[in-house]
Amino acid sequence: MYSFMNDYSEGAHPRILELLMKSNLEQNIGYGEDVHSQKAKMLIKKQLKRDDVDIHFIPGGTQTNLLVISAFLRPHQCVIAVDTGHVNVHETGAIEATGHKVYTVPGKEGKLTPEAIISALHYHTDEHMVQPKMVYLSDSTELGTIYSKAELAAIHRVCQLNDLLLFMDGARLASALTCRGNDIELSDLPQLVDVFYIGGTKNGAFLGEALVICKDELKKDFRFLIKQRGAMMAKGFIAGIQFEVLFEDNLYFELGYHANEMAEKISKVLTECGYSFYAPPCTNQLFPILPNDILDELSEKFRYSVQIKLDDHHSVVRFVTSWATTQKGVASLSEFFYGIAGK
Amino acid sequence: MYSFMNDYSEGAHPRILELLMKSNLEQNIGYGEDVHSQKAKMLIKKQLKRDDVDIHFIPGGTQTNLLVISAFLRPHQCVIAVDTGHVNVHETGAIEATGHKVYTVPGKEGKLTPEAIISALHYHTDEHMVQPKMVYLSDSTELGTIYSKAELAAIHRVCQLNDLLLFMDGARLASALTCRGNDIELSDLPQLVDVFYIGGTKNGAFLGEALVICKDELKKDFRFLIKQRGAMMAKGFIAGIQFEVLFEDNLYFELGYHANEMAEKISKVLTECGYSFYAPPCTNQLFPILPNDILDELSEKFRYSVQIKLDDHHSVVRFVTSWATTQKGVASLSEFFYGIAGK
Amino acid sequence: MYSFMNDYSEGAHPRILELLMKSNLEQNIGYGEDVHSQKAKMLIKKQLKRDDVDIHFIPGGTQTNLLVISAFLRPHQCVIAVDTGHVNVHETGAIEATGHKVYTVPGKEGKLTPEAIISALHYHTDEHMVQPKMVYLSDSTELGTIYSKAELAAIHRVCQLNDLLLFMDGARLASALTCRGNDIELSDLPQLVDVFYIGGTKNGAFLGEALVICKDELKKDFRFLIKQRGAMMAKGFIAGIQFEVLFEDNLYFELGYHANEMAEKISKVLTECGYSFYAPPCTNQLFPILPNDILDELSEKFRYSVQIKLDDHHSVVRFVTSWATTQKGVASLSEFFYGIAGK
Amino acid sequence: MYSFMNDYSEGAHPRILELLMKSNLEQNIGYGEDVHSQKAKMLIKKQLKRDDVDIHFIPGGTQTNLLVISAFLRPHQCVIAVDTGHVNVHETGAIEATGHKVYTVPGKEGKLTPEAIISALHYHTDEHMVQPKMVYLSDSTELGTIYSKAELAAIHRVCQLNDLLLFMDGARLASALTCRGNDIELSDLPQLVDVFYIGGTKNGAFLGEALVICKDELKKDFRFLIKQRGAMMAKGFIAGIQFEVLFEDNLYFELGYHANEMAEKISKVLTECGYSFYAPPCTNQLFPILPNDILDELSEKFRYSVQIKLDDHHSVVRFVTSWATTQKGVASLSEFFYGIAGK
Repeated sequence: MYSFMNDYSEGAHPRILELLMKSNLEQNIGYGEDVHSQKAKMLIKKQLKRDDVDIHFIPGGTQTNLLVISAFLRPHQCVIAVDTGHVNVHETGAIEATGHKVYTVPGKEGKLTPEAIISALHYHTDEHMVQPKMVYLSDSTELGTIYSKAELAAIHRVCQLNDLLLFMDGARLASALTCRGNDIELSDLPQLVDVFYIGGTKNGAFLGEALVICKDELKKDFRFLIKQRGAMMAKGFIAGIQFEVLFEDNLYFELGYHANEMAEKISKVLTECGYSFYAPPCTNQLFPILPNDILDELSEKFRYSVQIKLDDHHSVVRFVTSWATTQKGVASLSEFFYGIAGK
Repeated sequence: MYSFMNDYSEGAHPRILELLMKSNLEQNIGYGEDVHSQKAKMLIKKQLKRDDVDIHFIPGGTQTNLLVISAFLRPHQCVIAVDTGHVNVHETGAIEATGHKVYTVPGKEGKLTPEAIISALHYHTDEHMVQPKMVYLSDSTELGTIYSKAELAAIHRVCQLNDLLLFMDGARLASALTCRGNDIELSDLPQLVDVFYIGGTKNGAFLGEALVICKDELKKDFRFLIKQRGAMMAKGFIAGIQFEVLFEDNLYFELGYHANEMAEKISKVLTECGYSFYAPPCTNQLFPILPNDILDELSEKFRYSVQIKLDDHHSVVRFVTSWATTQKGVASLSEFFYGIAGK
Repeated sequence: MYSFMNDYSEGAHPRILELLMKSNLEQNIGYGEDVHSQKAKMLIKKQLKRDDVDIHFIPGGTQTNLLVISAFLRPHQCVIAVDTGHVNVHETGAIEATGHKVYTVPGKEGKLTPEAIISALHYHTDEHMVQPKMVYLSDSTELGTIYSKAELAAIHRVCQLNDLLLFMDGARLASALTCRGNDIELSDLPQLVDVFYIGGTKNGAFLGEALVICKDELKKDFRFLIKQRGAMMAKGFIAGIQFEVLFEDNLYFELGYHANEMAEKISKVLTECGYSFYAPPCTNQLFPILPNDILDELSEKFRYSVQIKLDDHHSVVRFVTSWATTQKGVASLSEFFYGIAGK
Repeated sequence: MYSFMNDYSEGAHPRILELLMKSNLEQNIGYGEDVHSQKAKMLIKKQLKRDDVDIHFIPGGTQTNLLVISAFLRPHQCVIAVDTGHVNVHETGAIEATGHKVYTVPGKEGKLTPEAIISALHYHTDEHMVQPKMVYLSDSTELGTIYSKAELAAIHRVCQLNDLLLFMDGARLASALTCRGNDIELSDLPQLVDVFYIGGTKNGAFLGEALVICKDELKKDFRFLIKQRGAMMAKGFIAGIQFEVLFEDNLYFELGYHANEMAEKISKVLTECGYSFYAPPCTNQLFPILPNDILDELSEKFRYSVQIKLDDHHSVVRFVTSWATTQKGVASLSEFFYGIAGK
């Protein structure tokens, strides 16, 4: 049964496995201070066209989120996020467990707006309420949508004017930056946000997110915090090796591009077959609205998830493609929908 | 320059790499609910001769420690550990960051004693002080020493009589269980402690610790806690695959045995050359007392760590061997010391 | 300028001051283990018609809320509250600072409903989300409304069926229990909720809330938690003395009744003058909708707060009465509105 | 039975009660923004000869300690204290509950030394260990001893050189500053420490500690933190009133002086009778070493506490005097010891 359940079903890109194998018996320094991690950081900085950022490799996304948010806030400060934001819903209260409120505002197709941030600031008037100090957003969002450069710049401006830190969760950044319609370059990000990460886990690595700290005053002592939250891998070099491979040429982007291409094929078929979408198809996550009566059959042939029961007859489902999604898998899903549509 | 710095310098045992490769394009279920994780758990349970334990794979040791301690204590409760304990010294306050005090007692060659636990209980008399509720120890200890079955049983008895949970950090359990002088079997542990882990990172895996929850009332909702602390890997199957390989035959123990054998060779040479030890050599960590005037030369040829400046002329250094330590590496260290000794 | 700003503008009821004075040079035991605290607890238990509850005196409301919520939840568990709930909005993230998410649902005139609780339970489906374990509500609510016995019983039933703890914030319980329309007796509460408190600060005490723990399994070690959160007063007897006075006859209820009576007079005047209310007037907090153009004049003569800018021409303001509100104060506010209305 | 158990057995100084009574029906602004609090702050600033400090009234000592320590540390930072320090032993892990380790060093008669601070700094070498960032000490100490101005200045210098914040717990500051041998003035403190508090609870107030923030960069947003930790009293004016009375003339110091005078009488008697002391008698806490065989009789006539079982025949007991200790009480204790001594 082919799976469109998520973008972390398969292992790592074969070239990653190759370098892991090749370097397996090297004796590396522990805790991320090895030569592979250094090289990977250098390669990423080159892509970012910035030498003055700090880069740390963190095993996973929830860890990165809780680490960043708790590192830079004082106890009375909160982070603003959209209500569908990953940190709000799907991390079992990881942020609150570090002591901070996630203050949520309504999103627009999963995206944060400058207006929502301003309304959050207006709402918090005095010391009887938490103090907003950081804005969290993700590109792509939980609904697979992306920010335009102008949208992100507008949010950044609001943050700067109001002394808010801007943090971008880039768990699915590869897909966001390589999708049709995107106008943001990786090298734009250090100018547009204060801290962000380049997701590896969902783009061909076994594990690992490359956290990029752009703002100078956030850099200090960060390794203490990584260690304290249990995010400093003894064999840090295995994250270094993976990002070395992903960034020594264009592999990182090629993998994101592939995932998008696969998703686009599926979305075209779904559109042809007359289905609409809960959020505009754009990156590697698709949210078609399907009639409930085809779901049983669909479930027999494919793995996917039902996201929302829309009404008695329709559900929003999610199909996710990845660096590893095969043409064959996509073809068989297409056939399924053509079959249903009698095409 | 050959390294005796630690037991996490190299990658993973080749057989682990092989299975990672072979299963790379399988589509696995995320978050540790895959077939490899299931198989690995089944294999471990078989070795434990217990089917009624819960097993979870956690990426690293600090994470496992903070997770276990914070999962089972109420806010006013503390954990008892020896002053040299890893949770006390070398985790950047990870336990305190979850809200709990680590109450330390003096160790005996790095080991906890029943007397020390009892004295800790006597010290805490009322609600103006924290309430001891858990005992943390590690086998092997931070000084490379091990617990005998009788010692561990005595500690367990004290814990049971005083309603204390007993948690064993097994980051270096492979070396402990396979060293000369050990009389504990892996299958003894579920009867001797309430929760423990079987370290993978320091015994041939890229990463991963197999946490074993023995006591029934500790099992509930544990996956919520794993997720909250950022310890639930999206690609949980890569931990599953590694433990599957380590436990499908005796590989886990063979690797520990190899590390010990390499250490024993070194300790014999050191003894021959007239050096004494800060703690009795036993497992894969050696703590010889060396004259300072040979350290410069030693540092030119080998990587190792200086632990304690003992007096103006002597230091305690640490040599660590591992599953990957080569005969050649050991031979060249031996030569070095024979050379110094004029042998 | 007369103040209707809140119910904590004045000191303590004169009889409280009297007993403080009379017992001032007694030598009392510290930390709440004195005879006054004992007597006060006995008197409250008598009113509750229950001898098997545990009572603790806590200095303030935010402290009581954070103490109760953090005492009984495991790290991955959350508390459900209405979006207007005090713990959600007006405690500067005090609950999150103890590590727990406040999951909010829409309120109905400030009140929680069984349906909202059930929807919260349905929303939380797996270990990637927090686990609801407690329900927080207050009587009276932040909008001055009250629960009927039937409403509270229905919520309690939902909680019992779903293994949720029910916690009632009674900062303004005196006003709730003595208002027209209330059908709950103080002695009903131990049967209707698991833990609640009887507010003193807002009903004639200098400070102090009497926390009543009804459910047996919540009683253990609670004094440890009080101490840890800094809520154990060295001179605990001053809280004991105050509750002794409030409960040695009907004073506690008389004070609540007086506040309600004063509020009722004001609400009648406002109704006569044609104003409507944002939430039905009921207890000692009134939320009339006033035209903006009278607010400047009102502000010159009275202290009160503007709660919501409803539209360009209207605002919701809050008038609060208390045990100390004078007939004269009420009369002058009435005159003000009659004057405006040309009556 | 007369009590020398502690310095918080009686209520408040009669002049405090008087002003509470007199101002009881005033309508004050809530949350510490009232005129009494303003006046009290002004009076304290006058005594401090500094207008540029921030003062906040906090209900109790544990709360003040946890508030200050958690407000100014980042998550990976710890506070250094002597092993007998109140924050280490007698606050049920209140500091750790905010996420921070208390790193303890041996005290010298309960006092911290510059050497101990430096050794703590040397011990913490890298990001695998917590980072010391604050030094906590109290004057007088838990053993009743005091710091000389030179000692405090030396500690301050070490702190400044090493970028450590210096926090003085002044729960018993009145006794410290008025005892024979003290050479510190209240007005010296803003130059000698970064933040400290002037204890009210143990010197004649019902409750309240006046926290003085001297260092500019610590002042920001402090009221948010007070609120979050539940330490912002609705009727903040009752703390204001108390400190207004204590500081409108020399009352604060007179009360401390009285306590010391009473203690001195007792210590003279004990010395005459041949008893020695566990720590040099100095302030209002005395720690005589008494033979166990007189303790039963002593307990029949007086309340006091046994601190340490020194050997089979001797115990360290603690006698505490206060602003309210009577000449008669002291006389009867003196008689007791004279009687034993056969004098």
